[in-house]
Amino acid sequence: MAATSKTLLDSATNEYVADDFVLSDPDSGLTLRKRTLRCGVSAGVDEVEISNGDFSFVVLPTRGMSVHRAKCGDEFIGWRSPVNGPVHPSFVDVSEPSGLGWLDGFDELLVRCGLESNGAPEHDPTTGRLVYPLHGRIGNKPAQKVTVSIEDDELTLTGVVEEIRFHFLKLRMTSEYKLRLGETGFRLNDTIENLSGSPAEMQMLYHTNFGAPVLESGSQFVAPVKAVAPRDACAAKHIDTWDRYAAAETGFEEQVYFCELLSDADGMTRAMLKNSMGSRGVALAFNQKQLPYLTLWKNTISEADGYVTGIEPGTNFPNPRTFEGEHGRVKTLAAGGSTSFGFQMEYLADEEAVSKSESTIQALQGAAEPEVHEAPRRDWSAS
Amino acid sequence: MAATSKTLLDSATNEYVADDFVLSDPDSGLTLRKRTLRCGVSAGVDEVEISNGDFSFVVLPTRGMSVHRAKCGDEFIGWRSPVNGPVHPSFVDVSEPSGLGWLDGFDELLVRCGLESNGAPEHDPTTGRLVYPLHGRIGNKPAQKVTVSIEDDELTLTGVVEEIRFHFLKLRMTSEYKLRLGETGFRLNDTIENLSGSPAEMQMLYHTNFGAPVLESGSQFVAPVKAVAPRDACAAKHIDTWDRYAAAETGFEEQVYFCELLSDADGMTRAMLKNSMGSRGVALAFNQKQLPYLTLWKNTISEADGYVTGIEPGTNFPNPRTFEGEHGRVKTLAAGGSTSFGFQMEYLADEEAVSKSESTIQALQGAAEPEVHEAPRRDWSAS
Amino acid sequence: MAATSKTLLDSATNEYVADDFVLSDPDSGLTLRKRTLRCGVSAGVDEVEISNGDFSFVVLPTRGMSVHRAKCGDEFIGWRSPVNGPVHPSFVDVSEPSGLGWLDGFDELLVRCGLESNGAPEHDPTTGRLVYPLHGRIGNKPAQKVTVSIEDDELTLTGVVEEIRFHFLKLRMTSEYKLRLGETGFRLNDTIENLSGSPAEMQMLYHTNFGAPVLESGSQFVAPVKAVAPRDACAAKHIDTWDRYAAAETGFEEQVYFCELLSDADGMTRAMLKNSMGSRGVALAFNQKQLPYLTLWKNTISEADGYVTGIEPGTNFPNPRTFEGEHGRVKTLAAGGSTSFGFQMEYLADEEAVSKSESTIQALQGAAEPEVHEAPRRDWSAS
Repeated sequence: MAATSKTLLDSATNEYVADDFVLSDPDSGLTLRKRTLRCGVSAGVDEVEISNGDFSFVVLPTRGMSVHRAKCGDEFIGWRSPVNGPVHPSFVDVSEPSGLGWLDGFDELLVRCGLESNGAPEHDPTTGRLVYPLHGRIGNKPAQKVTVSIEDDELTLTGVVEEIRFHFLKLRMTSEYKLRLGETGFRLNDTIENLSGSPAEMQMLYHTNFGAPVLESGSQFVAPVKAVAPRDACAAKHIDTWDRYAAAETGFEEQVYFCELLSDADGMTRAMLKNSMGSRGVALAFNQKQLPYLTLWKNTISEADGYVTGIEPGTNFPNPRTFEGEHGRVKTLAAGGSTSFGFQMEYLADEEAVSKSESTIQALQGAAEPEVHEAPRRDWSAS
Repeated sequence: MAATSKTLLDSATNEYVADDFVLSDPDSGLTLRKRTLRCGVSAGVDEVEISNGDFSFVVLPTRGMSVHRAKCGDEFIGWRSPVNGPVHPSFVDVSEPSGLGWLDGFDELLVRCGLESNGAPEHDPTTGRLVYPLHGRIGNKPAQKVTVSIEDDELTLTGVVEEIRFHFLKLRMTSEYKLRLGETGFRLNDTIENLSGSPAEMQMLYHTNFGAPVLESGSQFVAPVKAVAPRDACAAKHIDTWDRYAAAETGFEEQVYFCELLSDADGMTRAMLKNSMGSRGVALAFNQKQLPYLTLWKNTISEADGYVTGIEPGTNFPNPRTFEGEHGRVKTLAAGGSTSFGFQMEYLADEEAVSKSESTIQALQGAAEPEVHEAPRRDWSAS
Repeated sequence: MAATSKTLLDSATNEYVADDFVLSDPDSGLTLRKRTLRCGVSAGVDEVEISNGDFSFVVLPTRGMSVHRAKCGDEFIGWRSPVNGPVHPSFVDVSEPSGLGWLDGFDELLVRCGLESNGAPEHDPTTGRLVYPLHGRIGNKPAQKVTVSIEDDELTLTGVVEEIRFHFLKLRMTSEYKLRLGETGFRLNDTIENLSGSPAEMQMLYHTNFGAPVLESGSQFVAPVKAVAPRDACAAKHIDTWDRYAAAETGFEEQVYFCELLSDADGMTRAMLKNSMGSRGVALAFNQKQLPYLTLWKNTISEADGYVTGIEPGTNFPNPRTFEGEHGRVKTLAAGGSTSFGFQMEYLADEEAVSKSESTIQALQGAAEPEVHEAPRRDWSAS
């Protein structure tokens, strides 16, 4: 089959494919299905499922091109959030005074946090008013344009999402997801353009989230660690087991660790989560020059409350925006300038895949000894 | 006709019945009609009308399973709010900084207030930030699933509404409305489940609202009163006529009375509103063990501004949440636990029905003398 | 063709015309097209385009009957906002704590600011909480009813928009747009009714916005000026060129001038913007008794950030609401009372039209010398 492409939606032309649209390419074995959800808090959410037969994942144009969940064979990849989404942005009040409205829509395998800011909500110390809502706005902005193309046996789904406020930030994100036959994960490239005539600042954090079955008692986080530090006193107390996971525990208080990783000469690095037996896992590959910081969020609370861990490479740590700015963990884009973030999620379906991924990480670690901080670092932790 | 059932919408499966769906059962004489509103602030609101021929009522899945209005023969039951709804939740900013956004959508015969909190908005005294919005969020949450069944000549409409925020409350409400031939009202049962692995607190208040023709000059509130107290100075001034209603009056300042009722051995009690002649009325029946407090809201302002009275049985009085918590008027649910609220609304179409309802109330009152407080009770009134 | 009329949408009856509705009247040469946008932040927005062949304009019922843009022959009239709208109100959080959410939806040729308030956001000085959001709510309220009629070779589009909050303001705006063959602009009449039984206060400002090609280096604002004053120090610095425009300039800080105009015996007045050659322009005609103040907003920033000027006749200046109230620039409506605002936008397609419009303005100016204030007037400027 020759190269084929299709516009799924485009706000500039009002093109919008009929519900239950399917694009199936027998040559490459790749399929795309689009549908619109109709019920409850999901009413109006577009879902795009991309599959190569063995591996599939669902992208949410209506929620900033997030990945809702994935599947490898019969295995579910993602987590079981208590939030029954996907939630339409009109049911998520990101800017409610507490700054915590974002949590009403949080149930994705991958949600981007940004672009003006990410991290804990920040309030003006004088007026008490919200300045930066938790994890920013991009995850609740709908894509203005979504296209799909299949060429050379590779499917590319492209979505354009804008975070624009007159008089303020004018950023456009173009997200490209790619999939081929035989892959058990997706490759992603985001380009952020500053549309303004003046420079702009931005932050990006890839909030990837995994629960059972990869996450279980005895699961382990593996990465080539240059330095790791607890975010706060609670995490400090458990620094000895910072990369190990326990079984679900009612009322578990979340533990967060901030990391700097090692990488190869090109900046490429890798982090992974494996189960207790080392028989399955997920790996993330990305470029440390683009995403220099990684946050590990351990939330091994009861299943009902959302047993999950977040592996979150970013331009920064998810502290309040002002603190991160003071410590230089904000990206500047020139007028009309742009930057890109490459990101890959790979499902490790068996012992061999896990082992191979771990070897790559060990090679990156080499003889370097991880610098483990017993207490929060003043330059890394706002709290 | 054998038992029949139908899913009207289900977010888990994306089932959603076509517009103008009708389920009509000739045997029982019961009918259900579903439609979706398309215009203005109502765009996207699903309406479900249930009728037994003589009596009908309209449920709003999109607005937390509220009852918009009812009808008995040609008579309208409900009130004429200045708000021209039903209003889609995306046009109601419940959490706007004032905490008063809920008022933009207020026009129902019955709206639930809760579940995290209800009552007056509460702001943090230090930061000035909204903590609890007026009357909570449940009334502006859309149902995730709605089903109807007809069995043994009884129609049951069931809706599932969730008030869930990651890291915070995880409550699921399952509401069942029931109707039979010959009834002039609906029976309702709400079950609230705490989905969390940890205990949770909740509040519930059934905000039922009636205007003309049941409400008019000379209308009376009748209930087996153990104690009644004015909410504030304005209500205290009119304590002598606390259970009587005047004609519409421009600029009328609302008067609110807090009551504790008497009940039978099982906790069952009843409150009613009757017109001046005692020729029509509405009665509410519920269990005082489930809903121990009743608030009477008198708002006999001009018709244009919403001539209405609210009869509001609840787990608490609608004071700010913290005050109610301090006075033990908050319900605790164990991890995985649940609680139920039964509630019945009956239209009293003639003198006989009014008289019969009143006799039941008099029997509950018996020889007990209502304890009428001239001034606000410190343990009941925050203001 | 005899008089014809059609309801496009009506929340009272749930009438809603099918998508891509067209009403075409060969006799008058007038056409109306309605469509619903489906994508991104525009999803769910209704657009109504009215054309007489040469001139057309697009009205947005979903956004308070704003005019999105217009066209004369091949020429675009409006501006290129960095916001890619029209934006559905569910993506505009007007009441976010900053009070600036309105800016997320700002891209229209004409947007009304009001009705409770317009102007800069105002926060309570004690609690820090938002009291009046930037430019009010009416521009993000959807029309409850829209009808079109063609009679005597004139098309009338009528929309009803409500700004109603229980216990608070109850205003209804009925907007009528009119167009005839040969006209190169629209005539507009808004009637605001106070539905309440008590008096109400209101404000209205017609925020009309123009960019290229009418706005360019050397463009000029022309009006019969009684008095003009800079809003603040920045505008004061440039008072000598207050009515002249420069080319787009990166990082340009907006300059705002407050004006009082002269009018004819009936109160009719006119303001216009013409390009550098005087070969095209736009004129606004209105009654100064209804709209006594005019604000000129110069925002000649880079094209990417929104090169635009706003010509804004209003009942007041767009200062915070309390300041305007203190200076008597608030309109009071009696219980059940109403007021009307007439407004005309005319595109000036050639030198002759520009010249004729300018002559009318010169006649209004007559021998009167404009009173040019070098510094902000204390009674006009809050900042």
